[in-house]
Amino acid sequence: MSILVVGSVAFDCIKTPLGEVKNGLGGSATYFSLAASFFSKVNLVAVVGDDFTASHEALFHKHGVDLRGLQRRPGKSFFWSGEYGENLNECVTRDTQLNVFAEFAPEIPREYQSTEFVFLANIDPTLQHAVMRQVKKPKLVALDTMNYWIHHTPEELRKTLRLVDLLMINDNEARLLTGQSNVVAAAEKILTLGPRTLVVKRGEYGVSMFRKGSTFVAPAFPLKRVCDPTGAGDSFAGGFMGYLAATGAVNEANLRRAVVYGSVMASFKVEDFTFKRLLGLRRSEIDGRFRQFEKLTHFDGNSRKPL
Amino acid sequence: MSILVVGSVAFDCIKTPLGEVKNGLGGSATYFSLAASFFSKVNLVAVVGDDFTASHEALFHKHGVDLRGLQRRPGKSFFWSGEYGENLNECVTRDTQLNVFAEFAPEIPREYQSTEFVFLANIDPTLQHAVMRQVKKPKLVALDTMNYWIHHTPEELRKTLRLVDLLMINDNEARLLTGQSNVVAAAEKILTLGPRTLVVKRGEYGVSMFRKGSTFVAPAFPLKRVCDPTGAGDSFAGGFMGYLAATGAVNEANLRRAVVYGSVMASFKVEDFTFKRLLGLRRSEIDGRFRQFEKLTHFDGNSRKPL
Repeated sequence: MSILVVGSVAFDCIKTPLGEVKNGLGGSATYFSLAASFFSKVNLVAVVGDDFTASHEALFHKHGVDLRGLQRRPGKSFFWSGEYGENLNECVTRDTQLNVFAEFAPEIPREYQSTEFVFLANIDPTLQHAVMRQVKKPKLVALDTMNYWIHHTPEELRKTLRLVDLLMINDNEARLLTGQSNVVAAAEKILTLGPRTLVVKRGEYGVSMFRKGSTFVAPAFPLKRVCDPTGAGDSFAGGFMGYLAATGAVNEANLRRAVVYGSVMASFKVEDFTFKRLLGLRRSEIDGRFRQFEKLTHFDGNSRKPL
Repeated sequence: MSILVVGSVAFDCIKTPLGEVKNGLGGSATYFSLAASFFSKVNLVAVVGDDFTASHEALFHKHGVDLRGLQRRPGKSFFWSGEYGENLNECVTRDTQLNVFAEFAPEIPREYQSTEFVFLANIDPTLQHAVMRQVKKPKLVALDTMNYWIHHTPEELRKTLRLVDLLMINDNEARLLTGQSNVVAAAEKILTLGPRTLVVKRGEYGVSMFRKGSTFVAPAFPLKRVCDPTGAGDSFAGGFMGYLAATGAVNEANLRRAVVYGSVMASFKVEDFTFKRLLGLRRSEIDGRFRQFEKLTHFDGNSRKPL
């Protein structure tokens, strides 16, 4: 089955303790679709300016990403500039220029409207809501959001949340959305707002997935060298949704494996700047790291009563 | 097999967002031995003052903790006062009074000297070193330490580290000890300093265990309400060492299960103030939560190639 992603395609300036990238292609929809492309066909809806060239387009096509939903407008694409501190957990935004993204109104091409899996990347909840009106009975809709929308458009966000199956945010956003400092308590509250599944991203500490009656926790892959966290969350989402769409079935076992495949893709992503590491990736490497996750987390409970 | 713990028995004033305890019994050796007592026999070496009464003694005896190594001195016991902030990850120390602990010189009773499992709780590395000279070929020696000793007695700490099998610290201590901001890189360095196993405690994010050629990561148990984190690390250590001593065998599979039993004991500990929750615990509750950890972390890798 295939995936529809609606989000941003952008150009980023990124500075981390290990180096710098100027005007590299980025954006939530870019990271998402490249990561997901290893598993499923991806239909992309976003907006770009004149600075998005044929070579950028070729990169998506090489990964089988469908760009018929990519709008082109005169002007510059979304631009973001950020700098990470020593421990890479904190990032200071130096500059944000919406440019053509300021007028973005997602139009879902007819050919995309029956896509089974939908990922609403982190954009204005009003736009996410507009997407929901254009799609036809998707099997699973997942939504990402951020502090800005929780603060500035709480009503629109709540309205959109009621329409989605899965919310994917980080732990601070979960706290902010609910006013609960305890993430487990926050999760319980979020599961009454619409989504039946909550995926909480905790950066280097991994991911927790909450559903009614079940919780799953996966660590982040332990890396000796983290180069650039930009897009890690969207790469996680890409691996997660990509795996689910490939299986076609949304059930507990698949969701758990999807969390691990998402973590695998995020772990590759952060090993190099922008999406460089994703481009060269082979499916065998992805499956190899999935198996490493099994070794990393496995303990044998059979002889748990030694006394 | 049994365990020797050398550490502190103290009185604590604890304030958390959920309440307050004044002059409650505490200290690393107290939390450690109560948690370990569910698995193994514990021999305790520490020093207390006149404020340690028969009722405190009875509490240890009820848990089968041997107090023949507990020194009694005129004066007051070690005193600590601390206050936790809203998210419970940070604690401000309000007061520390060493009292009789200032002159503590661990003497290991002859009956304890052949104890197979030794836990050197967080005290001056010179004293930890002194313990090592008094014990006879233990099967496993684990050591805990903290920022203060890493800063103030780095040479003594390094000397003592060379003698122990396992180091148990938190992630900031691992960074400080090695000057590496990346915990995986820090772990690699620590494994060249003496210990063959490094257990990194990460509070609400769980525990990572590093050994040459293998890494294991376990989450913390997701709790909706955390009451008091004081002693969580020592309760983890107690469950960890207690399980290992009960099995008698130090191997990868047992070490992994020990991490989970340690996490189980820490999760019970934080549910109430001081060690209240540990006192009423049944072994069946401990094993029940161990099985919940299995459910929490398990994913099935068999159908990982759906394409």
